[in-house]
Amino acid sequence: MDKEYLTNLMREVAEGNTKPEEAVEILKDLPFEDLGFANIDQHRNLRTGYPEAVFCQGKTPEQIAVIMKELARQNANIIGSRATEADFEAVRKVLPDAEYDPQARMIVRIKEPVPKREGTIAVVTAGTADIPVAEEAAVTAQALGNKVDRIYDVGVAGIHRLFAKLDRIRSANVLIVVAGMEGALASVVGGLVERPVIAVPTSIGYGANLGGISALLSMLNSCANGVGIVNIDNGFGAAYLASNINRMGSGE
Amino acid sequence: MDKEYLTNLMREVAEGNTKPEEAVEILKDLPFEDLGFANIDQHRNLRTGYPEAVFCQGKTPEQIAVIMKELARQNANIIGSRATEADFEAVRKVLPDAEYDPQARMIVRIKEPVPKREGTIAVVTAGTADIPVAEEAAVTAQALGNKVDRIYDVGVAGIHRLFAKLDRIRSANVLIVVAGMEGALASVVGGLVERPVIAVPTSIGYGANLGGISALLSMLNSCANGVGIVNIDNGFGAAYLASNINRMGSGE
Amino acid sequence: MDKEYLTNLMREVAEGNTKPEEAVEILKDLPFEDLGFANIDQHRNLRTGYPEAVFCQGKTPEQIAVIMKELARQNANIIGSRATEADFEAVRKVLPDAEYDPQARMIVRIKEPVPKREGTIAVVTAGTADIPVAEEAAVTAQALGNKVDRIYDVGVAGIHRLFAKLDRIRSANVLIVVAGMEGALASVVGGLVERPVIAVPTSIGYGANLGGISALLSMLNSCANGVGIVNIDNGFGAAYLASNINRMGSGE
Amino acid sequence: MDKEYLTNLMREVAEGNTKPEEAVEILKDLPFEDLGFANIDQHRNLRTGYPEAVFCQGKTPEQIAVIMKELARQNANIIGSRATEADFEAVRKVLPDAEYDPQARMIVRIKEPVPKREGTIAVVTAGTADIPVAEEAAVTAQALGNKVDRIYDVGVAGIHRLFAKLDRIRSANVLIVVAGMEGALASVVGGLVERPVIAVPTSIGYGANLGGISALLSMLNSCANGVGIVNIDNGFGAAYLASNINRMGSGE
Amino acid sequence: MDKEYLTNLMREVAEGNTKPEEAVEILKDLPFEDLGFANIDQHRNLRTGYPEAVFCQGKTPEQIAVIMKELARQNANIIGSRATEADFEAVRKVLPDAEYDPQARMIVRIKEPVPKREGTIAVVTAGTADIPVAEEAAVTAQALGNKVDRIYDVGVAGIHRLFAKLDRIRSANVLIVVAGMEGALASVVGGLVERPVIAVPTSIGYGANLGGISALLSMLNSCANGVGIVNIDNGFGAAYLASNINRMGSGE
Amino acid sequence: MDKEYLTNLMREVAEGNTKPEEAVEILKDLPFEDLGFANIDQHRNLRTGYPEAVFCQGKTPEQIAVIMKELARQNANIIGSRATEADFEAVRKVLPDAEYDPQARMIVRIKEPVPKREGTIAVVTAGTADIPVAEEAAVTAQALGNKVDRIYDVGVAGIHRLFAKLDRIRSANVLIVVAGMEGALASVVGGLVERPVIAVPTSIGYGANLGGISALLSMLNSCANGVGIVNIDNGFGAAYLASNINRMGSGE
Amino acid sequence: MDKEYLTNLMREVAEGNTKPEEAVEILKDLPFEDLGFANIDQHRNLRTGYPEAVFCQGKTPEQIAVIMKELARQNANIIGSRATEADFEAVRKVLPDAEYDPQARMIVRIKEPVPKREGTIAVVTAGTADIPVAEEAAVTAQALGNKVDRIYDVGVAGIHRLFAKLDRIRSANVLIVVAGMEGALASVVGGLVERPVIAVPTSIGYGANLGGISALLSMLNSCANGVGIVNIDNGFGAAYLASNINRMGSGE
Amino acid sequence: MDKEYLTNLMREVAEGNTKPEEAVEILKDLPFEDLGFANIDQHRNLRTGYPEAVFCQGKTPEQIAVIMKELARQNANIIGSRATEADFEAVRKVLPDAEYDPQARMIVRIKEPVPKREGTIAVVTAGTADIPVAEEAAVTAQALGNKVDRIYDVGVAGIHRLFAKLDRIRSANVLIVVAGMEGALASVVGGLVERPVIAVPTSIGYGANLGGISALLSMLNSCANGVGIVNIDNGFGAAYLASNINRMGSGE
Repeated sequence: MDKEYLTNLMREVAEGNTKPEEAVEILKDLPFEDLGFANIDQHRNLRTGYPEAVFCQGKTPEQIAVIMKELARQNANIIGSRATEADFEAVRKVLPDAEYDPQARMIVRIKEPVPKREGTIAVVTAGTADIPVAEEAAVTAQALGNKVDRIYDVGVAGIHRLFAKLDRIRSANVLIVVAGMEGALASVVGGLVERPVIAVPTSIGYGANLGGISALLSMLNSCANGVGIVNIDNGFGAAYLASNINRMGSGE
Repeated sequence: MDKEYLTNLMREVAEGNTKPEEAVEILKDLPFEDLGFANIDQHRNLRTGYPEAVFCQGKTPEQIAVIMKELARQNANIIGSRATEADFEAVRKVLPDAEYDPQARMIVRIKEPVPKREGTIAVVTAGTADIPVAEEAAVTAQALGNKVDRIYDVGVAGIHRLFAKLDRIRSANVLIVVAGMEGALASVVGGLVERPVIAVPTSIGYGANLGGISALLSMLNSCANGVGIVNIDNGFGAAYLASNINRMGSGE
Repeated sequence: MDKEYLTNLMREVAEGNTKPEEAVEILKDLPFEDLGFANIDQHRNLRTGYPEAVFCQGKTPEQIAVIMKELARQNANIIGSRATEADFEAVRKVLPDAEYDPQARMIVRIKEPVPKREGTIAVVTAGTADIPVAEEAAVTAQALGNKVDRIYDVGVAGIHRLFAKLDRIRSANVLIVVAGMEGALASVVGGLVERPVIAVPTSIGYGANLGGISALLSMLNSCANGVGIVNIDNGFGAAYLASNINRMGSGE
Repeated sequence: MDKEYLTNLMREVAEGNTKPEEAVEILKDLPFEDLGFANIDQHRNLRTGYPEAVFCQGKTPEQIAVIMKELARQNANIIGSRATEADFEAVRKVLPDAEYDPQARMIVRIKEPVPKREGTIAVVTAGTADIPVAEEAAVTAQALGNKVDRIYDVGVAGIHRLFAKLDRIRSANVLIVVAGMEGALASVVGGLVERPVIAVPTSIGYGANLGGISALLSMLNSCANGVGIVNIDNGFGAAYLASNINRMGSGE
Repeated sequence: MDKEYLTNLMREVAEGNTKPEEAVEILKDLPFEDLGFANIDQHRNLRTGYPEAVFCQGKTPEQIAVIMKELARQNANIIGSRATEADFEAVRKVLPDAEYDPQARMIVRIKEPVPKREGTIAVVTAGTADIPVAEEAAVTAQALGNKVDRIYDVGVAGIHRLFAKLDRIRSANVLIVVAGMEGALASVVGGLVERPVIAVPTSIGYGANLGGISALLSMLNSCANGVGIVNIDNGFGAAYLASNINRMGSGE
Repeated sequence: MDKEYLTNLMREVAEGNTKPEEAVEILKDLPFEDLGFANIDQHRNLRTGYPEAVFCQGKTPEQIAVIMKELARQNANIIGSRATEADFEAVRKVLPDAEYDPQARMIVRIKEPVPKREGTIAVVTAGTADIPVAEEAAVTAQALGNKVDRIYDVGVAGIHRLFAKLDRIRSANVLIVVAGMEGALASVVGGLVERPVIAVPTSIGYGANLGGISALLSMLNSCANGVGIVNIDNGFGAAYLASNINRMGSGE
Repeated sequence: MDKEYLTNLMREVAEGNTKPEEAVEILKDLPFEDLGFANIDQHRNLRTGYPEAVFCQGKTPEQIAVIMKELARQNANIIGSRATEADFEAVRKVLPDAEYDPQARMIVRIKEPVPKREGTIAVVTAGTADIPVAEEAAVTAQALGNKVDRIYDVGVAGIHRLFAKLDRIRSANVLIVVAGMEGALASVVGGLVERPVIAVPTSIGYGANLGGISALLSMLNSCANGVGIVNIDNGFGAAYLASNINRMGSGE
Repeated sequence: MDKEYLTNLMREVAEGNTKPEEAVEILKDLPFEDLGFANIDQHRNLRTGYPEAVFCQGKTPEQIAVIMKELARQNANIIGSRATEADFEAVRKVLPDAEYDPQARMIVRIKEPVPKREGTIAVVTAGTADIPVAEEAAVTAQALGNKVDRIYDVGVAGIHRLFAKLDRIRSANVLIVVAGMEGALASVVGGLVERPVIAVPTSIGYGANLGGISALLSMLNSCANGVGIVNIDNGFGAAYLASNINRMGSGE
C-alpha cells in the first residue's frame, strides 16, 4: 500500500466517511508492508543504481532464468554470480544480451551504463590460482560502477613483487586482498595502507588448508588493523562491500 | 504509542484540526512500535500467561536486578535462568519475594498462580550428573504452567532402569531427554514413544565428549524420528519449547 | 508369542497340566518379545495411522524394493525418503502404485486416505536453494496427514519479504524453518511466533558454511526460545516431529 | 646505514671521488633498511591524526608501561585495548593523565583533541552481554575521531526493538554490529542498510556457541551482502576499520 | 518382583484363586523388571564377582556417599573412579573401611577378597605424566581380580626402553597402553604382540594435542591391527574391558 | 651383519683367536639389526595360523598383485581388505584360486583350512546400510578361524528388535557392534552383556554425522563399560581384535 | 624508477647541479620499489644453483606452460610439482626437453647438471601407499642436487623392518619421514637419530584420519625432539627444506 | 640376560663345549633386550655434548627433582623446559647449582662449558607477547651450544621493522620464527632467506586463533618453501631441531 492509499484513508476520515475508531482498526490490521515499510529495500537497487544480483549456486538453470527474466522487467542491469555455463545457456534464452565470464563465473547484463566513481578498488591476489575468485570480485566491482585495478600474483613468499606495486596499492581507495594457503598477504597489505582492506580467503591450497579455513583464520587473526573478512571464495561479497565503501569516498 | 494516541490523531483528522496529508506524514514518521506493532511481542507474556524470563549469564548482577525490577512493574511472574548466587543477592534487594534454586541455578518469582495444564512434561535424565540441567528444565516448565514428571538416572547402560519407568514415560505429553556422554538415551526414548521428544545434550563427560558436542552430535543423528534438539545444557530452552507444545495439547 | 499363547499357558496351569514352578521357568525363558512386549512399536504405524517410512540413503535399490514390498503386506501407506530415481525404479516394479517426487526425493505410496488434521504446518525457507529440503518436509508432513502451507524464499536479508507473510506464519500450528548459510531465519521466526518452531539447517552455502554446520550452530544458539533443531537437511525428521506436535493440537 | 653515510656518498660523488655509475651500484647493493625506509609507516599516526594504539593482552603491565611511555614521547594521544586494571596501574605511574574504562577494558590518553568527522558510526548490539565488546569498539571509534551512536540490545528475537531504532540505524555512515549466540543481527542489519557493515562476533553464549565460533560462522555466511567480519570479540579492530571507512566519507 | 512372586501367582492360578485370563493381564501389566528381567544386570556384579563401580565425576560428594552406602548394602566390594579428596571425605563417613588412592583418584573398598586370575594385564605408559591415568587403570584392574604388571615410561622416542621390557610385554594376556602426545606407543606395542591391546589416549601434552584428541586420532588410525581404543584418560574403562577379556583367558 | 660374520666370530672364539671377553664386547657393540632380529614377527602369521592380510586401499592393483604373490610363497592363506574389483582382477591373474566378496570388498584366498574356535563372534549392526562394514568384519573373522553370528538391523530406534535377539547376543564370546548415525547401539549392547564389545562406527548418515565422527564420538563416550573402539568403517580391525580376544577364550 | 633515473641523479650530483644534501632527500623520498630492490630474490635461484620451481596445482595447463617458458629464458633447470598429465602435455609443447614422472607428479627439466652434495637425504615411508608423496620429495631433492636414499615401507607395526635399515637411516645427513595413518614413524625415527628429521604427514588412511590431520597432529605432538613438520602430502616442501639443511652440511 | 651369561657362553665356545654354529643359533634366539642394546641412545648426550633435557610439564616437582638428580650422576649439563617456580624449588634442593629463567620457564644447570658453534641461530618474534616462547627457544639453543641472535617484535603489520633487521636475519645459519595470531611472519621470513626456517606457532591471540591453531595452520600452509613447523608454543623443540641443523653447518 502506497502513500496514496494512506492519504485517501485520511481524507475519508476528514470527510467523515470513515470514523476515527474505524480508521484505527484499519491501520492496525493493515498488512505490514502496506504501511510504507515496503520501502525497506524493494526499490533499493533503483535508488542506488546498482544492478540487481542473483546468487546462482544452488538454483537450477531454469530457476535462474525465471528470476533474471522477472528482474529484467524493472532492472536494466543484472548480474549473476557463481553461474555455470549451463546457467548461462538458460539465461541467454530469455535475456539474449546477457554475457558470461567463465573465469569469474559471472553472468553480466548491463544495459544502462553505470556511472564510474572517482576512487579505485584494487584487487590484489597472492597467487595465480587465486585469480578466479579475484575476477569474481573485479567483474562485480566494475558492474557496480567502480574502477578496478588488478594486481595479481604478489604473494609474500617473494615480497619484492608486492613492493614493486606499492604505489598502485597505496593509490587505491579500497583494497580487496584475495589469498589462499596461509593468507598472509592480507596482514602485509593491511600494514602498508591506511585504507579499508577487504580480505577474501580462497580455498586454494591442499592438506591442512582445510578448504580455505586456514586462510580464513589467518585473516581473522591478522595482526594488521583495518581488515574486514568475507566468506571463503566470496569475491562477490567483497566487491559489494568494497563498492559500498567506495561510494562513501565519492560522496554518494 | 498506544491505541489512544492513534484514536486521538484520527479524531483530530475527523474534526479538521489535522489535515489528512499532515496525518499521513505523522503516521509515516512515527516510531515503528507506535503504530501498534508493539503487539508483536511487547505484551506477549501477558497474553500467554508466561512469566517474563531473563537469561542471566553474561549480565552483571546489577544489570539483572535493574532488568527484573523493570519487568516487575508489568509482570507478576518473572524467572531468571543461569543465575548465580551473586545474581540472586542483587535481585533479592529489589524483589524480596524472589526465590533461588541453586541446583537449577534459577531465580523464580511467581506472584500470580499459573494455571496448570492437563498434560505432563516428563524430564528424563541419563545420569545423576545431568540433574542440574534437568532441574533447569523442570523448574522452568513448572513456572510456565506445566505438570512435570522427573524421571532421573535411567541411562541406556542399564536399560532395565528405563523400562521400569516405561509407563510414566509413555503417559507424558512431551518428553525432555537430558543426557551427556554419548546421549544415546534420546534415541532409545524416541523409539519408544509417539510424542514429541526434546533432547538436551549436556556437557557431562570428559575427553572426547568435547564439552557436550559428542552428545549433541548423537542426538542430531538420532536414528529415531520425532526428536528436536536444543543447545548443550539448554534446559531452559527445552522447557520453553516443550511448554509451547504442551499448550497445544491443552487447546490453548 | 501372542496373548493367546500366554492365555493357553495360564489355562494349562489352572488345569494342573503345568506346574506353577514349570510355568515360572517357561515365563523366564521366553524370548523377550513373546511376553507381549512386541507391542512396543511393532504395530505403531497401524495405531497412529502414519505411513511406514523407509530411509533409502545407504541402501541398495534392491534392498529398498524388498523392504517396501514386505511393508506393503501390512501397510497401505508407505513413504521413502532420500530416494534416488534408481531406487524408485526398483520400487515401482514391486509397488506399481508408488509415485516419486524428484525435488523432494521421496517415494510416496498412499493407498488409504490419511485423515487431515485441523492445524497447519507452515514450511518456511530462507532461499530458493533450500526448497528441496523444504519439499522433503512438506511432502512428508502431508503424507502424515497434515495441512501444509509453503512459504518460500523469505530470508532475513530482505526482511520485508518475511513480514509480508506474517499472517500466514502466525496462523500455523507448527513451523518448520528451513535455512542454509547463516540460518538466521529460525531466530527471527522464533521471535515472531508463540508456536513450536522446528528448524532445519541446510547444507546450502559454500566456504565457511562447512556443509551446513554454520546454519546448524546458528540455530542451536538461537536467541529465540521455543526452537528445536534437527539434523542438517533432515526435512523428513522435521516433518515427523512437527506432525507429532500437530497431532496434539488436534487432540489425537 | 644512516643519513650520514648517504650524505657522505653523495659528497663523494659531488667531489668526483666516486663516479655516478659506481654510486648507482653502491646504492643498489646497500642493505635495504639503511636507505631510511622506516618512513613506510613510522610517522603514520602523526599523519593520520590517529592515536597510537597498544594491544595490551599478552604483555606484562611493565612492558605496557614502557611502550606507552616511549610512544608518549612523540604522540599526544595513545590508547590501549584489552587492558586490565593492573595494566592501567602500571601505566598511570608513567602517564598520570591516562584514564581507564573498565567496561571497554581500554586505557585512553587523549591530550590533543581529535577533530570530529561528520558521519556517525553506529555500534549496535544484540544483547546486554555484548556491551563490553561494543564499548571497546565505541571508545576506540571515539578516540579515532568519530561520532558514535550506541544502539544496544536490539537482537532479532524481538525484532520490533530493532525496527524502533531503524532511523538511527539508517542515518549512520558505517555500522558495527556486535552479536554473540547465533549472530543473526548482522544479516538483518545488513539487509536493512546500504552502508558498510562491520560485524563483530562475540564469545557470548554457551554450549555449541564454541566460544564465538557459532556467531563468527553465521556472520561469514551472512545472506546479506556488504558485511565484513573481524575476529571474535575484536571491538577494537572493528572500530579501526569503521574509522578508516568513515574517513572516506569525510573526504580525508 | 522376584521369582517368589511369580511362583505365588502361578500357584494361585493352579489353585483356581486367579483365573488364567486375570493372570495374563497381571503379567502384561507388571512393571518390566518384575517379570524377572531384572536379571539383565541387577545382580550382575554379584554373579561376576566384580565390585560395583561408581563414576564420581559430575556427582556431588553427598550424592556419591549416598550411592555408595546404598550399594554397600548388597555389595562387599565397591570402587569409585574420578573421585576427589572431598568425595572420599564424604564417603569415609558412611563407609569407614573405604580407602583412597590420590594418584589414581580412586576410592576402593574391597571387603571380600577377589580371586586372582591367572593371566596378567600389563599397563604400559609412554611417559611419566601418563601415570595417573595408568594408575586408574591398574587399580581398577586389580580391584576386578586381575594381576597387573606396571611398565611405565617406555615411550617410542627412546625405543630401547621399550625393548628392554619386551619379555614382560609379551608375557601379558592383555595390554593397556596409556599414552598422550602423539600416542605412537600403541602402534608399536600393537605390532609387537599378538594379544589384545587396549589403548588409552591421555590429555598429556600441549598445543596441537587438543586435550588428547591428537593421541586419540593416532590410536584410531593405528597401522597395527588388534588395538581397541577407549575415551581420552579413561583408565577405568580400559581396565574394565581388559578384565572382561582376561576373564575369557581364565575360562570364566 | 649376516649370519656368516657371527659364525666366523664364534669360530675365532672356538679357535682361541678371540677371547671370550673380547667377543662379549664385540657382540654388545654390534649394530642392532645385524643380529637377525627380523624374527621379531617375520614368521608371526605362520605361528598364529592367521592368514597374511593386505590392506589394499591406497595401493595400485599391480602393487597388490605383486605383494600377494610374494606372500603366497610362504602363506597358504591370504586376505585383502578394502579391495576393489580392479584390485581383484589383478590378483586373480597371479593367484587364480583367490575369491572376491564385493559387499565386504575383500579378497580371500584360503588354501589350508583354518581350524574353527569354540566361541562365537557376533557381528551386530544398527541398520541395513551398515552391512558392508559388518561383512568386512564377518568375512575377516571367519578367515581368521572364528565362528560368526550375523545379527543385522537391530538399531535402538526399535529396541524390541534388539531384545528379540538377546539370547544370540548373550551367547557370543565377543561382540562387534557396527553402527553409524548416532552409534547408540554400542552403549545399549555394552550394557546388556558382560563380554568384550568392539564398536565400529560407520560413516553411514548425513549432515552432522561428519562422515562417521558422530558415531565415533558416541562410542568413545559410551556410558557402558567394556567397549573398545576402532576406526570409522574399520571392520577388518574390529575382527582382528575380536579374533585375538576369542583366541584367549579358546585357550590358544 | 629504473637504473637510468638513478644514474642521471648521480650525474647531476657529480656535475654539481644537485647538491649532495638534496640528493639524499630525493633518495629518501623515492618510491620504494624504484630503487631496484627486486634484487631481493629475483636472482635467487641463479645464485643458489637451484632449479626454479612451479607449483602447478590450481593453475591451468596453459598458465603453467607460459610460466615455464618464461622461466626457461633465464633458468636452465626447472621443476614443476603437483603436475597432471595434461599440465605436462601443455609444457612439452613449449619445452620439448621436459620430462614427467607420473608417480611423483612432477615435471622435471634439468639442462645444466646440478652438482651433487656429499651428504645423503634419506626418504623413509611407513607404507606402500605413501610412496607417491615420497617420490615427490625424492625427485625434488635430487633435482636440487642431493643424493637420495629411498627407504620405503618400514612402518612401526612391524618395527623389525625399520631396524633392518637402521644403518642406512643413521648414515643420512637429513631424514624425510613420510607417513599417513597415525604417523608414528616420525617419532620412532626421531628417537633413533641425531640428525634433522622432516616429517611429512600424508592423507593416506580413512575414517578418523581426517584427510591426513591425524598424522599431522601426531607428528606435531611427537615425543621425539628434532622433528620439523610440513603440510600434509607436501613432499616438495620437505625436500626443499631438507636440501637447505643438507647444503649446510656441505659447507655451501 | 646379563653380561655374565654372554661371557659364560663365549667361554663354553672357547672351551669347545659349545660349537660355534650352536652359539650362533643361541645368540639369534636370545631375548632382544638382553644383548645390552641400551647402547642405542643411553650415551647419546655424552657423545653429542648436549645437556640432558627434561620436559617438566605434567610431572610433579618431586618427580622432576628425582629425575634430574639421577641424570646429574652422569651428566654435567641438564636443562628442564616448561618448569614452574615450584618445580625449580624442588630441583634446587637436590641440585643447588641449577638456575631458573622465569620468562623462558626453564631450569638450566650447565657445569661443563658447552663449546660454541660458529653459526648463529636467529630467534625472531612477531610481537612482544611471543617473547616467552622465543626465550624458551633461545635459552635452549644457547644451552645446546649455539650462538643466538634475538630479533623480537618485527611482525608483518609494520614490515619496515622486519626489513630494518634484514642483515641480521640473513646472516643467521638457521632461523626460528615465533609468531601467534596469523603467523604470517614465517612466510615472509621464509621468502627472504635461503636458510632453514623453523616456525613456532604460539597460542598468542584470542577468538578465532583457537589457542594457536590459526598460526599453526598458517605456517603449515606457508607459500614460502623451506619452512618446518613444530608444535604450538614448542620453543624447546624448535631450538633442538635448529641446533641439530646448525651442527651440520659446523661440520660436527
